[in-house]
Amino acid sequence: MVKIPFHHVIRVGWADCDPASIAYTGRIPAFALEAIDTWWEEHLGIDWYRMNVDRNVGTPFVHLDLDFTSPITPRHPLECEVRLRKLGQTSITFQVIGRQDGTDCFSGNFVSVIVVSDRFEKRTVPQDVRSIIEPLIVSED
Amino acid sequence: MVKIPFHHVIRVGWADCDPASIAYTGRIPAFALEAIDTWWEEHLGIDWYRMNVDRNVGTPFVHLDLDFTSPITPRHPLECEVRLRKLGQTSITFQVIGRQDGTDCFSGNFVSVIVVSDRFEKRTVPQDVRSIIEPLIVSED
Amino acid sequence: MVKIPFHHVIRVGWADCDPASIAYTGRIPAFALEAIDTWWEEHLGIDWYRMNVDRNVGTPFVHLDLDFTSPITPRHPLECEVRLRKLGQTSITFQVIGRQDGTDCFSGNFVSVIVVSDRFEKRTVPQDVRSIIEPLIVSED
Amino acid sequence: MVKIPFHHVIRVGWADCDPASIAYTGRIPAFALEAIDTWWEEHLGIDWYRMNVDRNVGTPFVHLDLDFTSPITPRHPLECEVRLRKLGQTSITFQVIGRQDGTDCFSGNFVSVIVVSDRFEKRTVPQDVRSIIEPLIVSED
Repeated sequence: MVKIPFHHVIRVGWADCDPASIAYTGRIPAFALEAIDTWWEEHLGIDWYRMNVDRNVGTPFVHLDLDFTSPITPRHPLECEVRLRKLGQTSITFQVIGRQDGTDCFSGNFVSVIVVSDRFEKRTVPQDVRSIIEPLIVSED
Repeated sequence: MVKIPFHHVIRVGWADCDPASIAYTGRIPAFALEAIDTWWEEHLGIDWYRMNVDRNVGTPFVHLDLDFTSPITPRHPLECEVRLRKLGQTSITFQVIGRQDGTDCFSGNFVSVIVVSDRFEKRTVPQDVRSIIEPLIVSED
Repeated sequence: MVKIPFHHVIRVGWADCDPASIAYTGRIPAFALEAIDTWWEEHLGIDWYRMNVDRNVGTPFVHLDLDFTSPITPRHPLECEVRLRKLGQTSITFQVIGRQDGTDCFSGNFVSVIVVSDRFEKRTVPQDVRSIIEPLIVSED
Repeated sequence: MVKIPFHHVIRVGWADCDPASIAYTGRIPAFALEAIDTWWEEHLGIDWYRMNVDRNVGTPFVHLDLDFTSPITPRHPLECEVRLRKLGQTSITFQVIGRQDGTDCFSGNFVSVIVVSDRFEKRTVPQDVRSIIEPLIVSED
């Protein structure tokens, strides 16, 4: 079943913060990536780990970009909205928007290619995967 | 003294790698950020920690983007070249290129603004900092 | 209200795993610490971040030990049981047990001292904190 | 050639610190593990990554303990001394002591077992490895 918008909630804690008392910049891409991993798990039924280990399908990233608009702190949960933006023959583009307490904290784009995991060789999106995720594309606003 | 190009070498290890046996995507922005932190330390004499804690000057990021062109592994040191690209009134742009064994692995751009740390308020680049780093700008190729 | 046993569930993902396809050893103490942070949040109403930033009370660790009995993977949630074991004048001891799918993965002990955060000076456990957490001590089995 | 004592120097940075402006507790076991990884690299010529991927030998940890005696900050390099303490049939014990500017910050013990990596099955220490590392045992003071 299609679940749009898809949100993944992250607990931001002491461990994620730097001496400026906000989440360290270097942690934020990892938050967004975790949200994408849960998107796969929700829609495909398996996460990156199982896609790679059990199905020999990997989705290494070739690009990411992020704009940071408000600091992230442990005072509120971090709600990450994941949108499938593009589905090419061999590549997949996600947008992730992170919000705390109603405020946008970051927005970013993440482009993966599809590979045969154990050979790290580009391949097309498997047909069963395509069928499941194609209806999930969120077109530009 | 001006040291261009500036390189920071990172040891990539088991701890940085995921089950695909390459450095996890979420670690790579952190590698680049560490390289920028050492760029400050080299040229200004103090790193982010001391800039913030001792001088109350912070450089939070408003943007980063990265293109990944080759996987990073523990088989070679990761040489990160840091280039100061732009120096505005209140913002600073760096490019970081990561290489292993002569191969480009990633290239990215990182935009900071300058703030009064304890108030998280935008300010201009301190004059003494500007004098030191202005000669370090590496213009586009 | 007393909630014993206290459990905190952690999503283990691709990001946490090393090339052996299990959670990296260096991540596991961080899992346990996150569980202790949520224990505070649950019982005191504020987490480490707010204890430090808002109340100027810190709980730096002076000791930790962990025994690892089964590998942790992304195939199951990691259920961390946190037990307050000892409450001294100026120190607090927790045990954390991590389980996946009914199997114990690790058990460890974590000893904190209480400090005035901004001076990093030992102090006694604040009286209101003691009143709340004293009933939560789980005596040895 | 035997190199005792063995030291590995770690750059502690902004990224490693929490809002108390010291290295986060959860990072410290990872520092010690990195030091052990470099110990292997120095003495055996290959690190954990290559031991696992190229030789199918893994050294998963069954125990670690750490005492923290002084906070770690980015103001000084973190010098980690690694001592091989015990070499059993199938297990290896290291001690790691971390120092900054002449002050002991932590001391800990780390026990690994030896496994066939791809089956995660206990095995004896390979004979060539034993020959190389046996002379490196540092007996208790």
